[in-house]
Amino acid sequence: MRAFSTDEIRQAANVLRGLSIDMIQTARSGHPGLPLGMADVAATLWLNHLQVAPALPEWVNRDRFVLSGGHGSALLYSLLHEAGYGISLDDLKQFRQLGSNTPGHPELNHKLGIEVTTGPLGQGFANGVGMALSQSMMAARFHTEETALFDHKVWVFCGDGDLEEGISHEAASFAGHLGLRHLIVLYDSNDISIEGSTDTTFTDDTEKRFRAYGWEVLTVDGHDIAAIDRKLRRAKRDSACGPVLVICRTTIGYGSPNRAGTAKSHGEPLGEEEVRLTKQALGLPPDELFRDPPEITDLFRKRAASMNRVARRWQREAKQFFAADSARAALYKALTEKTLPEDLAEKLPKFPADKPIATRAASGKVLQVLAAELPWLVGGSADLGPSNKTWLDAYPAITPTDFTGRNIHYGVREFAMAAIQNGMVADGFFLPYTATFCVFSDYMVPAMRIAAIARQQAIYVFSHDSYAVGEDGATHQPVEQLACMRATPNVTVIRPADAAETAEAWLAALRRTEGPTALLLSRQNLPVIDRVSTAPAAGTARGAYTLVQNGTGTPDLILMASGSETALALDAARARPQYNIRVVSFPSWELFEQQSREYRESVLPPACTNRISVEAGCSFGWSRYVGDGDESIALDSYGASAPAGVLAKEFGFTVEWILARIDARLG
Amino acid sequence: MRAFSTDEIRQAANVLRGLSIDMIQTARSGHPGLPLGMADVAATLWLNHLQVAPALPEWVNRDRFVLSGGHGSALLYSLLHEAGYGISLDDLKQFRQLGSNTPGHPELNHKLGIEVTTGPLGQGFANGVGMALSQSMMAARFHTEETALFDHKVWVFCGDGDLEEGISHEAASFAGHLGLRHLIVLYDSNDISIEGSTDTTFTDDTEKRFRAYGWEVLTVDGHDIAAIDRKLRRAKRDSACGPVLVICRTTIGYGSPNRAGTAKSHGEPLGEEEVRLTKQALGLPPDELFRDPPEITDLFRKRAASMNRVARRWQREAKQFFAADSARAALYKALTEKTLPEDLAEKLPKFPADKPIATRAASGKVLQVLAAELPWLVGGSADLGPSNKTWLDAYPAITPTDFTGRNIHYGVREFAMAAIQNGMVADGFFLPYTATFCVFSDYMVPAMRIAAIARQQAIYVFSHDSYAVGEDGATHQPVEQLACMRATPNVTVIRPADAAETAEAWLAALRRTEGPTALLLSRQNLPVIDRVSTAPAAGTARGAYTLVQNGTGTPDLILMASGSETALALDAARARPQYNIRVVSFPSWELFEQQSREYRESVLPPACTNRISVEAGCSFGWSRYVGDGDESIALDSYGASAPAGVLAKEFGFTVEWILARIDARLG
Repeated sequence: MRAFSTDEIRQAANVLRGLSIDMIQTARSGHPGLPLGMADVAATLWLNHLQVAPALPEWVNRDRFVLSGGHGSALLYSLLHEAGYGISLDDLKQFRQLGSNTPGHPELNHKLGIEVTTGPLGQGFANGVGMALSQSMMAARFHTEETALFDHKVWVFCGDGDLEEGISHEAASFAGHLGLRHLIVLYDSNDISIEGSTDTTFTDDTEKRFRAYGWEVLTVDGHDIAAIDRKLRRAKRDSACGPVLVICRTTIGYGSPNRAGTAKSHGEPLGEEEVRLTKQALGLPPDELFRDPPEITDLFRKRAASMNRVARRWQREAKQFFAADSARAALYKALTEKTLPEDLAEKLPKFPADKPIATRAASGKVLQVLAAELPWLVGGSADLGPSNKTWLDAYPAITPTDFTGRNIHYGVREFAMAAIQNGMVADGFFLPYTATFCVFSDYMVPAMRIAAIARQQAIYVFSHDSYAVGEDGATHQPVEQLACMRATPNVTVIRPADAAETAEAWLAALRRTEGPTALLLSRQNLPVIDRVSTAPAAGTARGAYTLVQNGTGTPDLILMASGSETALALDAARARPQYNIRVVSFPSWELFEQQSREYRESVLPPACTNRISVEAGCSFGWSRYVGDGDESIALDSYGASAPAGVLAKEFGFTVEWILARIDARLG
Repeated sequence: MRAFSTDEIRQAANVLRGLSIDMIQTARSGHPGLPLGMADVAATLWLNHLQVAPALPEWVNRDRFVLSGGHGSALLYSLLHEAGYGISLDDLKQFRQLGSNTPGHPELNHKLGIEVTTGPLGQGFANGVGMALSQSMMAARFHTEETALFDHKVWVFCGDGDLEEGISHEAASFAGHLGLRHLIVLYDSNDISIEGSTDTTFTDDTEKRFRAYGWEVLTVDGHDIAAIDRKLRRAKRDSACGPVLVICRTTIGYGSPNRAGTAKSHGEPLGEEEVRLTKQALGLPPDELFRDPPEITDLFRKRAASMNRVARRWQREAKQFFAADSARAALYKALTEKTLPEDLAEKLPKFPADKPIATRAASGKVLQVLAAELPWLVGGSADLGPSNKTWLDAYPAITPTDFTGRNIHYGVREFAMAAIQNGMVADGFFLPYTATFCVFSDYMVPAMRIAAIARQQAIYVFSHDSYAVGEDGATHQPVEQLACMRATPNVTVIRPADAAETAEAWLAALRRTEGPTALLLSRQNLPVIDRVSTAPAAGTARGAYTLVQNGTGTPDLILMASGSETALALDAARARPQYNIRVVSFPSWELFEQQSREYRESVLPPACTNRISVEAGCSFGWSRYVGDGDESIALDSYGASAPAGVLAKEFGFTVEWILARIDARLG
């Protein structure tokens, strides 16, 4: 189809501006600065370049459009509305209202054309990097000399705030290193931040900075539509060689006579009078609300119709391609469906009870089998692979010249790693796990939260999960991390007691597609619990289960433990056969809470309020389970630097100390 | 004194290497790569350039030396030992043992010469930026045409990992923008990370990157002592104009025949045989452990003696200077002693009970008074000052050309902000507060943890503390943050119920010098509680207090609430005069737990287990206080985008819902 003219695009941009400021004014809440400032770039991109198919919103080779500055959501919703996605004019009028599909910041919804959940700055940028990585990995697997099915672009809108955030460094450095192709970031450079001019604090030479990462950098007047059109064409061409940053020099709040170019236009409605004046300045009827002229809609719909045809043609080509290549067809099916083999549990390694093994090492052994069974499973660590035991031995690393691998070197970039993971998951083909020491999960918190909000699957391997890190000391010993993750809605934490529970934990994480799962693994060797006289490890899937009981009926005392402390509790119970002690292995609160009340009360009978928790972390939250006595053997202060065995005695994580507490209660 | 020769420095460097690898081998734990790789740079710096006075370790104008890669602690301890700080040869032998003063990663101890707690990568870099900022602010306040008392250097050792972390971007961009003088970062560029060559993931052009931030960048062979000496001289000169990065090209594990230049040298002991071979290669007696020859100690002690004289001379000059300038003397005394005026509480604004005000706005009013009273109080926000209400109206901003101000524009750089704050606090003159939306405290977690571990005072202003953010939606509404901060040892959280409690919260934060305090403040207006029929807000300092009770004796039911929910609880109790309901204002768990058992039981009598908590956040942890019924009116899922009033009804934060729960229990 023909390209739209600058005049057509300018009119479309102004309609988007009008819709956006009306949405914000109607809601009496929102951010007009970005929609007004970036409407010209957005309209040019959407009308002449972006390859998305509103009739097939989940078309896998669609271009990805990520609005990293999610506060500009009014612009995104206006675009989606015009392009014919499932966002009506009424939806625009319901902007920021309860239950609407136009919330304050975009929330992942592929059917509606919203690729990822954005708002907290910098993360959308990294999500885009993850999508571009995913595509390169698809290309490496499916492209032949004749056919290149996975060649779409990833377009990211970002702003000054995104580029001030540290995650932009991590993600840009990573993308530049890998030379990620088809990634184009459109930087809304408007010289304004909330506290005023960016001159007050942000005076980087961003072009030089991105060139230092190996990016191509273009610059354009963000209100010169012909120039934008040319630069986007150029960016597409250049992006065949690696990532491209297009610096769009814009005016924040463009068109608003009294707010343009000021911080005041960023985050509050213009006010009714200024809305009128802005429309007047833009050549729009000043008193018409939600003006949505058919001739402008028509432009977007023409583009959509053309792209829908492109998508359908792609689907036919893909069908033919896969019909002729059964191996790749099988792989494609596996990647898009991600069905777990029914016999997966049986295939996982068994661990002999007489051979202690760290749960991180057991996890590494499980991973090797999973990798062979699940071609969509890929992953990496923030430069701690050898310690996290997350390397897939049978597969190469991803490198700038070879994306066939399944191991990703994330570098010491924990936060970007987790946000790249979110982008890859959103892309739909791979299920990436990420890994670091448990204590450095702190660096990933904001991205874990987005995964949880967006209900995206994500698997985190957090090894070195307690004071037993030992000599590295307090800065490297997690204490509160367990409680913090448990407190975070829709994050499931599993801290397996031994190798067998570790395999079960991996199964649970793979099955949990509606949110992130964190596996907390030991640095140190742990006994593999002899499952002859104790319950099978399959109980892990229920979060908590009775591992053993010295007698029958309601116990005199319940010891609840997770991870490395479970074996201690078991030994303590066995050392006091005279008491009716029950040991509950408690790897996951979240999985336990999902069980029926009947099951939960069968494990923790309300009649027995004599309960002690044993866990190498803060007691915070355990009062929920420990009951009356409110007794937790826990670590409620920071750790210390010493050999792990010395610390175990110091902090009371010993059979002796548990026995002392049992005797104090029952003796 | 004369500069030491390259030969002398080389021998000193090799002694440091020998000590470091012996420490690590003896501990059977530690990181030899950095000490071996950076010993030449360290010895040159410490013998010929670093101005520290071991006899006066807290001399305020000492050069600051920050080891951002804290895993290289063996090198730091060796240096401190040689220089004559309170670290003996026996201490080196106790490396990484319980209770030693040589833990695995450096822990802040100014008397021992350890400036900050480091380990989690990237943060030491930002701490150094904070120290340099602090010095520029001191210079602006105290320098005259004749006298420049605060002109020391800040030297930071950092590595590839530090520069991969996003915080390095935030901090370097901030430092470059302000043109921070006397900041010299020595970058141990050894091309190796834990997963192997940095070529696998980190191929930035770091020189170009730092030039983009406005830094001067020098490069040197990190094993050519004469060249290092020249470059450090040059760096000192150049740093008079702004921050300087010195790229030191080094070999990780230098000297180790079989480990040098490999990832294996980074983080595990060399092994006894390799220790011998390394010593041999370095010209040290291979079988001598902890070799500490007096002729080398003598070099360091000569330097120390000379610097001790410099420090004493500085002290005399400072004494004379302040004797002649009483205004500056008073300011200096205030900054170094930070004594709170006895009548401070009385000077704080009073808030009329008939005029609702957001606690963030009340905080802003309190801050203006505090600023006038406490010249050491400075602060800023991560680009949200107008929303956080943290601007000090009577004072200018810090700018590249004027450091007399007290307002810091941190930019959208939350993590660096908190780490810069830690560096400023460690510097000893200013008490900086930092601010952002409560939900973005997530970005600051790793630096908050360091403040808590190091027991450093820090005040965080977290406004927009609940779902009442409203329209911005789930990504902007804190839910779990309260629980996460409470779970973190040595962090005190205060969520005041109204303006009066906000003033008390500030007082508590100022008085708490042994760790960080987070103030959680409302976006929305809150009633100012009429203190005529209720208890005074001074109870805030005790964490929880009985605000009002409908009757006397043991209550039938206790409503516990914090922040914006307190007024709701109060209204609910007043609407049910027929029940003996007690309302407990519960702004701070940590302050409450510090009270005597007697006090705690007077507020929450064990006899009354009929208790409901009301708080707009996760219920996680509340089971500790709510007792049998285990009832929390809380928000255990993510928020939503809608006007705050709509959400209050949706989530049950209304008087009506509290009444329904009261009636269900007592009716």
